[in-house]
Amino acid sequence: PNEVKEYENYFGMTLLDRRSDKRTDSNWLSKKQIHPTTVYILFSNLSPLVTLGGGIESSQQPEVKLCRLYHKDVKQYLNQTEEVTLIFLGVELQFHMNLLAAHNGRVLKEDEEDGLIAWFALSIDPTSAQKFKQTHEDCYFLHPPVPALLQLPEKEAGVVAQARSVLAWHSRYQFCPTCGSATKIEEGGYKKTCLKEDCPSLHGVHNTSYPRVDPVVIMQVIHPDGNHCLLGRQKRFPPGMFTCLAGFVEPGETIEDAVRREVEEEAGVKVGHVQYVCCQPWPMPSSLMIGCLAVAVSTEIKVDKNEIEDARWFTREQVVDVIIKGNQRSFFVPPSRAIAHQLIKHWIGMNANL
Amino acid sequence: PNEVKEYENYFGMTLLDRRSDKRTDSNWLSKKQIHPTTVYILFSNLSPLVTLGGGIESSQQPEVKLCRLYHKDVKQYLNQTEEVTLIFLGVELQFHMNLLAAHNGRVLKEDEEDGLIAWFALSIDPTSAQKFKQTHEDCYFLHPPVPALLQLPEKEAGVVAQARSVLAWHSRYQFCPTCGSATKIEEGGYKKTCLKEDCPSLHGVHNTSYPRVDPVVIMQVIHPDGNHCLLGRQKRFPPGMFTCLAGFVEPGETIEDAVRREVEEEAGVKVGHVQYVCCQPWPMPSSLMIGCLAVAVSTEIKVDKNEIEDARWFTREQVVDVIIKGNQRSFFVPPSRAIAHQLIKHWIGMNANL
Ligand SMILES: Nc1ncnc2c1ncn2[C@@H]1O[C@H](COP(=O)(O)O)[C@@H](O)[C@H]1O
Ligand SMILES: Nc1ncnc2c1ncn2[C@@H]1O[C@H](COP(=O)(O)O)[C@@H](O)[C@H]1O
Repeated sequence: PNEVKEYENYFGMTLLDRRSDKRTDSNWLSKKQIHPTTVYILFSNLSPLVTLGGGIESSQQPEVKLCRLYHKDVKQYLNQTEEVTLIFLGVELQFHMNLLAAHNGRVLKEDEEDGLIAWFALSIDPTSAQKFKQTHEDCYFLHPPVPALLQLPEKEAGVVAQARSVLAWHSRYQFCPTCGSATKIEEGGYKKTCLKEDCPSLHGVHNTSYPRVDPVVIMQVIHPDGNHCLLGRQKRFPPGMFTCLAGFVEPGETIEDAVRREVEEEAGVKVGHVQYVCCQPWPMPSSLMIGCLAVAVSTEIKVDKNEIEDARWFTREQVVDVIIKGNQRSFFVPPSRAIAHQLIKHWIGMNANL
Repeated sequence: PNEVKEYENYFGMTLLDRRSDKRTDSNWLSKKQIHPTTVYILFSNLSPLVTLGGGIESSQQPEVKLCRLYHKDVKQYLNQTEEVTLIFLGVELQFHMNLLAAHNGRVLKEDEEDGLIAWFALSIDPTSAQKFKQTHEDCYFLHPPVPALLQLPEKEAGVVAQARSVLAWHSRYQFCPTCGSATKIEEGGYKKTCLKEDCPSLHGVHNTSYPRVDPVVIMQVIHPDGNHCLLGRQKRFPPGMFTCLAGFVEPGETIEDAVRREVEEEAGVKVGHVQYVCCQPWPMPSSLMIGCLAVAVSTEIKVDKNEIEDARWFTREQVVDVIIKGNQRSFFVPPSRAIAHQLIKHWIGMNANL
């Protein structure tokens, strides 16, 4: 199932080619900003502007979709550098590939239009956002982001994850952590440079200048008998929801050791073999969720109440009931778009194949 | 082979249990700081203090080992909070487990000595470091750290990775990135808190307070024919060295997509299926190297000279010659402790098993 998913991702599911080479081409970026085919997605307070597809008339559930805006819709914000942050997200992949085929390798002349459809994320201040909504009644800012973000189509969720992570980085990292001075944004939004002339952060390459991505392990822990799995819940979860244990990878730690440490810390259960399954970027604000299967070598649960509220072994039947049959009387798990759901499902599928 | 390695890691290779629960127990931390069995490892400028084991007299190659110091050796630095950073690394795992067995579950009384051997990393200023070396002639600060760090025994390298990453974070992140104010170190060195009373970073949990870990993908790219692999070199490498391509995971990106993007950016080769193999923390300053096998779906190489100097397809025989037979006439790869070496070796092994 993973292989299929990866191929899909590659051959059709990714919406944008990030084209990081264009981030330093300020000439190209300026031209694309005013080009009529360029797509803007709008953010206020890290929430993306969305609209309802399908419609209330139609028989299906209305689907939440990103609003695709154009230069004419946002040009009044583009010169307000104070309150506004602009991030170059990439170019449309589908079109890009057709185009490359059409050009058949011919090199474009200096000023020739390359036909690439660029995407930008634009974050505006709350007052402007309020005004914008008044003139665009069918649009709203998706809030609260969790679990609403999981309602977006998968391709769009990826773009929002990218934009939201970079915007969150700019909003929390406004000052140079090395010297405390102000910074300026460069390279299409992917770099922050200290404005103090002799700051040590300007000598050599340092991660202080680049967006932060926090690796997190999330694991489906299997009982030594192979027929139970360990799920837990935090106090802030809706009543009845259980999910996979998770935690931040610490400095100097492998993924596998992080899985073992977190399961032992949170639930007192010892883990032996760990196997990577799949991952998911999670823009809250900027985590990379690394999903694993973990085989327990002990079974007694001792919950650390500082970290989680409860953890229990669930039988394979209980999980199948909830995931496949949709029977949610005893407990429920996160929605299918969440990596925890995929990990749990992977485990049921895997066992079925044995 | 991975499974074996993981079990080894778990059942014997990890030196310390991080005991993150003790980070908030300042009473326990103070007691351990002055305890005679507590181990200190010393750093200057992110370089650890080491000594040579084996000795020049002995027939083997001398081995580089961490200097284990005690409270009596370092007590003059512990009150100099200005120039000194102290990080709690964990407790010795081996001993810890024996002890637990001996106690047999008996709960310790409030003031009873728990017998745990704590480890701390202590970073001192260059002048103190200079003086220290003069009075300890058999010790020196390991410099430059690359490739010297790879000479340390594996267990010790893990501890150095942990300490070095946290120390590098403190040295680069001295100011609150949200408001630019000064910060204070807490929780055994794993947390930084802004000193400005109304800073937004103090409301809720934010990654600005926690050490940074940068996920990096490193990939052995296999030719569609299965019998060649793609290795590249950067300008700053020693002449003749080739290794796996690598790059930082970007916000909103999966591991698999990062592999595809980096291989296409650096070498112009398209990748389909990607498979996780193993990972390695790399304290330069704080990366998590995520090792993958990647199957190419195109073969023409177009090197991006901004990123790398050269990239080539090598035959399986060439790689076996270098890795197994140690024949380094045409090219060579990083030493066996580096994850790139392990990935390349994994590929040969894997093919041999087919
Ligand atoms: N967290 C990061 N730390 C350092 N460099 C980064 C980071 N994220 C992206 N980069 C980019 O990666 C380049 C260094 O890559 P490398 O030469 O592979 O170490 C830098 O010049 C940056 O453009
Ligand atoms: N990069 C990070 N961002 C946020 N919290 C972190 C980070 N690294 C470690 N932590 C710790 O993880 C806890 C939050 O974990 P969680 O409840 O799983 O989101 C915080 O209270 C911190 O103690």
